[in-house]
Amino acid sequence: MNRRFFLKNGSLGIIGSSLFKPFDSSANNMGYDLAQNTKKAKNIIMIISDGMSSGTLHMTDLYLSRKYGTGSNWLQLYTDNRVSRSLMDMASASSIVTDSAAASSSWGCGVRVYSGSLNIGTRGEEHMPLWQKFKKAEKKAGCVTTVPITHATPAGFCINQKSRSNQERIAEKYLQQKFDVMMGGGDTYFSPEKRKDKKDMYQNFTSKGYKVVKTRSEMLSASIDQPILGVFHDNGFPYSIDRENSKELQQKVPTLAEMTQKAIEAMKDHPKGFVLQVEAGKVDWAAHGNDIAGLIYDQIAHDEAIQVAMDFAEQDGETLVIITTDHGNANPGLIYGNEANGNFDSLQKYKHTNDWILSGIGKETSVSQIKERVNYATGIVLTNEETKQLLSHYTDVHSEEGLYNPRHLPFKLLAEIQQKHTSIGWISMKHSADYVELAMFGPRSQLLKPFIKNTDLHYLMLAAAEVENIF
Amino acid sequence: MNRRFFLKNGSLGIIGSSLFKPFDSSANNMGYDLAQNTKKAKNIIMIISDGMSSGTLHMTDLYLSRKYGTGSNWLQLYTDNRVSRSLMDMASASSIVTDSAAASSSWGCGVRVYSGSLNIGTRGEEHMPLWQKFKKAEKKAGCVTTVPITHATPAGFCINQKSRSNQERIAEKYLQQKFDVMMGGGDTYFSPEKRKDKKDMYQNFTSKGYKVVKTRSEMLSASIDQPILGVFHDNGFPYSIDRENSKELQQKVPTLAEMTQKAIEAMKDHPKGFVLQVEAGKVDWAAHGNDIAGLIYDQIAHDEAIQVAMDFAEQDGETLVIITTDHGNANPGLIYGNEANGNFDSLQKYKHTNDWILSGIGKETSVSQIKERVNYATGIVLTNEETKQLLSHYTDVHSEEGLYNPRHLPFKLLAEIQQKHTSIGWISMKHSADYVELAMFGPRSQLLKPFIKNTDLHYLMLAAAEVENIF
Repeated sequence: MNRRFFLKNGSLGIIGSSLFKPFDSSANNMGYDLAQNTKKAKNIIMIISDGMSSGTLHMTDLYLSRKYGTGSNWLQLYTDNRVSRSLMDMASASSIVTDSAAASSSWGCGVRVYSGSLNIGTRGEEHMPLWQKFKKAEKKAGCVTTVPITHATPAGFCINQKSRSNQERIAEKYLQQKFDVMMGGGDTYFSPEKRKDKKDMYQNFTSKGYKVVKTRSEMLSASIDQPILGVFHDNGFPYSIDRENSKELQQKVPTLAEMTQKAIEAMKDHPKGFVLQVEAGKVDWAAHGNDIAGLIYDQIAHDEAIQVAMDFAEQDGETLVIITTDHGNANPGLIYGNEANGNFDSLQKYKHTNDWILSGIGKETSVSQIKERVNYATGIVLTNEETKQLLSHYTDVHSEEGLYNPRHLPFKLLAEIQQKHTSIGWISMKHSADYVELAMFGPRSQLLKPFIKNTDLHYLMLAAAEVENIF
Repeated sequence: MNRRFFLKNGSLGIIGSSLFKPFDSSANNMGYDLAQNTKKAKNIIMIISDGMSSGTLHMTDLYLSRKYGTGSNWLQLYTDNRVSRSLMDMASASSIVTDSAAASSSWGCGVRVYSGSLNIGTRGEEHMPLWQKFKKAEKKAGCVTTVPITHATPAGFCINQKSRSNQERIAEKYLQQKFDVMMGGGDTYFSPEKRKDKKDMYQNFTSKGYKVVKTRSEMLSASIDQPILGVFHDNGFPYSIDRENSKELQQKVPTLAEMTQKAIEAMKDHPKGFVLQVEAGKVDWAAHGNDIAGLIYDQIAHDEAIQVAMDFAEQDGETLVIITTDHGNANPGLIYGNEANGNFDSLQKYKHTNDWILSGIGKETSVSQIKERVNYATGIVLTNEETKQLLSHYTDVHSEEGLYNPRHLPFKLLAEIQQKHTSIGWISMKHSADYVELAMFGPRSQLLKPFIKNTDLHYLMLAAAEVENIF
């Protein structure tokens, strides 16, 4: 018996000297009969809504239910009783409250690392990332995301690096590993005009046999005979609702569901199977900005990617689909009051995010222009006093800080002004410690227990696919 | 076949013309083999943490893990894979965001009612409350809570009334129904000195054969040959952490776990079985007050009641245990930052709630006395400026409003001051729309699907116990 299947961590309930014996003990607890359900997962698709507090999931389901009469794909899987569910503790080696790099690394290497680092342990040691393990097992491996493809969540499945922030270096490491499909934003880290070292990463990827695509239509028509690098925007993608209301952006940038579809198409016929990480990265950015339209519509984009993955997995029968988030962020919620229903439903009329509103204002903008812009985007009629408060952030120096707020725009102020119109509250503009929701569909999904540590998921994916663990 | 077993609502997956046939379809979806698991629930214990956002559950588990090395009983049931889990949509007929009366009524009569009303439908019609249905099936029935026993959550299982606020009348309706164990706070609604109508409800309960107990020791030693009315405090109980640090309160007031134990003892030998509702009512009040020590320690009190119920249910083998909450409140969470761990662990040194701090301050209190009081209770050293801000709420008129804040104490201000010391944030001082966590242990717990409506639970309890539904 191959001891590389042994798991380092007993909390999955899979320990012992044979592959199936330990599954039995876990499986019996779950009430499943593994004798009839021992098919392994040939493929794994993991779909992550980055920074999704439970309120984000629930409000999006409520939003869809009230607008269309049917809720989210995610919760429909629960209603239909088709998935295993768990809560997952996402703490990092640094803190109860993780960042996305440590979160992704916990899944990526099965070890809790310090915030900000990618698969580098607390003693400085490198742990082999999960997608490299699957590549060694001769599977295809890829990532698609709506933030830079070099961002923390995809990087945490792919490479080792002490700091997540050196995204130029991460682009080079991707090339070394030659993953099969890598698509998202982040032109800044690939383009010779924008990289500090002026390297032309597109040329380097092309030389190594990649098809490089930079627009939605190029992506849709790209041959699947080559590995694909898709980079569709400077940095993170525009928010989904802003894209929906811009023909130009629709032509340039694909949706998360479209990228997911393309990645599956490109890898599904590989005889040894494939692994794919899908990230709705801008849900996190919206939470950091307390930007409700960004949050709900990008969560919907995540939900549409779930549908793509499920459609494939149901037909395929050998694909494990994992749906989760890497941490809470801002714990948004709809607040009790006579106006709660009406305020919540007013979000259905939104055309744009707060990011779109605030990015289009400058110190030269007039009060009436701001009022018009806010009204156009949200239906809200600001008072003169509120408008002047907003404008003062552009003319004075009391600018807001924020992780994804390089221009120091007044996101917090606008969300506070908005609250009486939306009944939506936020605890902060940062991540939270809440355990996260996790659902699994497909072969070996019954291995999941109702409460796990983040690091357990690394071993569960290896066990589900019967891929050798390499320490 | 008795058509009164039919369920009005298909979303439970239990529809059809026989009792067991519909169970099969639900059960097969769950992957359970009901042929080996058809024992009905003789007893039901439902344990509710009122107003528990997911962050409240998760932070309490983290708090216990970090302090004692083992987490909560609730999440240990998940780790050990011993329960069915669900998310539950708690909307009322009024709103996406429910109050406790409509929430309890949704379980209590299987119908969504307007906020504030108790088992009165939207056309004004009365629906028979669940504990009355179980009484008609000759089971014993009771409620224990840390808020007035006449409060919305117990009342929603027991009686019909248009408005939850007339608690004097609710006390009289309890007497008419002659429930078997009713214990909590609310002397205000029973005592002839405090009731507006001067009725002596204690005398009335005694005349009808009840043992009336008013202190912890009276309760512990009470004979179980009679029905029991226990009223241990004027209104809601003191918060658990304040009780723990007061010998006087410990003698007067029992814990939720002790009341749960007594209620089980009093009803467990009844040949036809029993139903018991257990409510940690002050978790909700703490969330309304953004009072972190109240929140965590009363959630721990709820968790200790879980242990009592589980100890009984495991030994008994015929008891369905349901663990849940009726709605989110304030969506608290621990916020990212270098100080998050240390700040969170500082809660371990707390001796008292913000309620205790603020209730002991008056306009005559000096700045140094306030600083001393806050430091004694929490370890926090306030600045003079912060202290003066607090004091100004007692001397000026700009008092805070709040559902459980009749003295208009500055709970919000203190929570805001506290945040830099605790890293805990809150979205508001009101309920939220989040779906709620639900766990079930014991016979027929496998009927639970991973996502349900609140009203489904009414029918699930009847089906689990095979008690006739009465419309």
